[in-house]
Amino acid sequence: MANMIGNVLVGQSGGPTAVINSSLAGVFQGAKKAGAAKVYGMVHGIQEFADGRYVLLDDVLKGEREIELLKRTPSSFLGACRYKLPEVKLGSEIYEKVFRLFKELGIRYVFYIGGNDSMDTICKLYDYGQLTGSDILFTGVPKTIDNDLDITDHTPGFGSAAKYVATMTKEIIQDAHANDVKLVTILEVMGRNAGWLTGATALAKGADNEGVDFIYLPELAFDMGKCLASVRERMAKKRQVTIAVSEGLWEESDSHFFDEISANAKIDAFGHKELSGVGECIGKFLGKELGCKIRVVNFSSIQRCGSHIASLTDVNEAFMAGEAATRFAAEGVNGHMVIFDRVSNGPYKCEAKAYDVHKIANVEKKVPRSWINASGDGVTEAFLAYCRPLIQGEIMPVMENGLPVHLTLPER
Amino acid sequence: MANMIGNVLVGQSGGPTAVINSSLAGVFQGAKKAGAAKVYGMVHGIQEFADGRYVLLDDVLKGEREIELLKRTPSSFLGACRYKLPEVKLGSEIYEKVFRLFKELGIRYVFYIGGNDSMDTICKLYDYGQLTGSDILFTGVPKTIDNDLDITDHTPGFGSAAKYVATMTKEIIQDAHANDVKLVTILEVMGRNAGWLTGATALAKGADNEGVDFIYLPELAFDMGKCLASVRERMAKKRQVTIAVSEGLWEESDSHFFDEISANAKIDAFGHKELSGVGECIGKFLGKELGCKIRVVNFSSIQRCGSHIASLTDVNEAFMAGEAATRFAAEGVNGHMVIFDRVSNGPYKCEAKAYDVHKIANVEKKVPRSWINASGDGVTEAFLAYCRPLIQGEIMPVMENGLPVHLTLPER
Repeated sequence: MANMIGNVLVGQSGGPTAVINSSLAGVFQGAKKAGAAKVYGMVHGIQEFADGRYVLLDDVLKGEREIELLKRTPSSFLGACRYKLPEVKLGSEIYEKVFRLFKELGIRYVFYIGGNDSMDTICKLYDYGQLTGSDILFTGVPKTIDNDLDITDHTPGFGSAAKYVATMTKEIIQDAHANDVKLVTILEVMGRNAGWLTGATALAKGADNEGVDFIYLPELAFDMGKCLASVRERMAKKRQVTIAVSEGLWEESDSHFFDEISANAKIDAFGHKELSGVGECIGKFLGKELGCKIRVVNFSSIQRCGSHIASLTDVNEAFMAGEAATRFAAEGVNGHMVIFDRVSNGPYKCEAKAYDVHKIANVEKKVPRSWINASGDGVTEAFLAYCRPLIQGEIMPVMENGLPVHLTLPER
Repeated sequence: MANMIGNVLVGQSGGPTAVINSSLAGVFQGAKKAGAAKVYGMVHGIQEFADGRYVLLDDVLKGEREIELLKRTPSSFLGACRYKLPEVKLGSEIYEKVFRLFKELGIRYVFYIGGNDSMDTICKLYDYGQLTGSDILFTGVPKTIDNDLDITDHTPGFGSAAKYVATMTKEIIQDAHANDVKLVTILEVMGRNAGWLTGATALAKGADNEGVDFIYLPELAFDMGKCLASVRERMAKKRQVTIAVSEGLWEESDSHFFDEISANAKIDAFGHKELSGVGECIGKFLGKELGCKIRVVNFSSIQRCGSHIASLTDVNEAFMAGEAATRFAAEGVNGHMVIFDRVSNGPYKCEAKAYDVHKIANVEKKVPRSWINASGDGVTEAFLAYCRPLIQGEIMPVMENGLPVHLTLPER
């Protein structure tokens, strides 16, 4: 195993997940194993690191208990940001500040744990390093419940979110059947442009659960009239109908059901709309047309921070991704992101590799059309076979006095 | 121990909980232990039982695995109803139908697991029985996440819902701190007129979590202006503010922020408004006034059916309540509900007793004013000391292939 010389810096960015801190634990332990002198953490990502906010992780992660707590703590332990670095050019103030700090801290390796937008940050830091002849190595560690990173088989964070969403879907369908009345339950799931997590609601179906009736992914245009017809037809056969919708659903331009939502949506630093409300919007329409009870369940931030029933596979793989990043960096790999290669699906086996981050950043991987059913309102068995290994195994939080215990940064 | 002679009938009613089926398991096992010949279950409560829908539980609950699955299955295994029996009088069709069925099935003991409204059903069946000289014994088994039943120290279902809500609150506050931006998070919690569950969000506070900033219970009138002033003041000190609101919040009559919600609310069979939307309503107002990001998390039905992190204390006590009901009935107690008596709080000890159901039905127990803080926006240490024992211990669902397995009624 190659050794690390000098200090390490690691940051987290983007939306929280249940396992992003497991990747942080992986980077920390991997770096220490490889002989890194000090491991620093950026506080609130590159944005506040530029203002001198960082923490010495060696002081915080002192023993096995802290590492275990960290692995099971949801959200971003170090704090994250949604900040887009400007275009790379000499004389840019923020790059000069950041690289001056790298030098002051003796940093030789930088790791950034995040999704699509965070990989953009790694690309730019690498490019600036190349431009200035820096000897610092930059590596991306994938993270996102959206599962929309390209090249990698899947992303850490997706498995736990999928397990949580599928579990809640099962429980909500149980609940929906309690009363023998007509009821349409609408589950609104995260995923702006990619329907991976919304599709995961299909995992709920089994011998003990009839599953979701219709699933609408943002890969296809949503047709309110068709949805109404489908629900009406299904309701002629049974009283409780459940549909799952992605928060990012969109309509053909001649349809205007979602106009109000789009008008109110805020735009974040990366130009993405912050959406919410398609569930309510569809619910209001169906309620008026069908005259029956409508229940809208928005999984909201619960689905990404609910770590009390995380996927053990996901927690372990997130750790593996962090550890592998340090191994690749120690070997001199630069400007790459860790990817997962599913070498076998039966039995499931996944290996970490490195891949040029420039080919991954800013690309969104969507659910392939062939994994969506012909009528566009469900997913195929191939989609389910892809998801199932990722939700296997359970890991509970560390519980004390009836509640989960989390590790938190003293200075935050 | 007294023996049961003849057959037993048990029903479930009202909103589902994580542990209502544990009480059903308790009734079943208690009845069998006491020598009951057959145990029948009403399908969808008294409403559809009247139409002849029932199931022989001996056929369904054949072994230890079924009992364990039942205890860990959320929602109402037998199906529930929201049906109010008419006033008791001779010649009433539904009473004649129901008592004729009791006779046909050889029923000597009837158990009804439910909340306030379900206890109204037990009262009326008992009264009709008295009027007609019936020898059938009627017993209520408490259930409600709302914890609003009188006389009993607490109700089965509350502990698991409180544990779930407190766990999610901790995780959501973790999530809210990920990004260093101004954010008001609003948690909308169930509870029409009683704020027990909303108050349970206060359990999240600890060494690793700053907790909820303000809690608004339906026991007091909500003042939008005062809430805005409180949030604004707190935000001057820190960037993320979290408030918990009960779905049943109401305003003084000269305030009209909630007018739209009340206008749209549906009324159920017992005359209760089905509310939802105060969180969104408060969020819209605060967002406009404060100009910062607002996140509204509505725990919706998730909080009552989320059984993947149930309270072991609650599951065990729910079972105990069901079993105790059969013991009391076998001893000849009639027209009573099982209540919990907290004989000690340190160490916590709780015993099941029987109490005249006529004095419990249709009464709502609210959070006492002395357990709400002086400023009316939080709960006291006495409230927390009351709640803490109820969320202790964990019980996981039976997991298979990465997801919980539930027991479901074949004929449902």
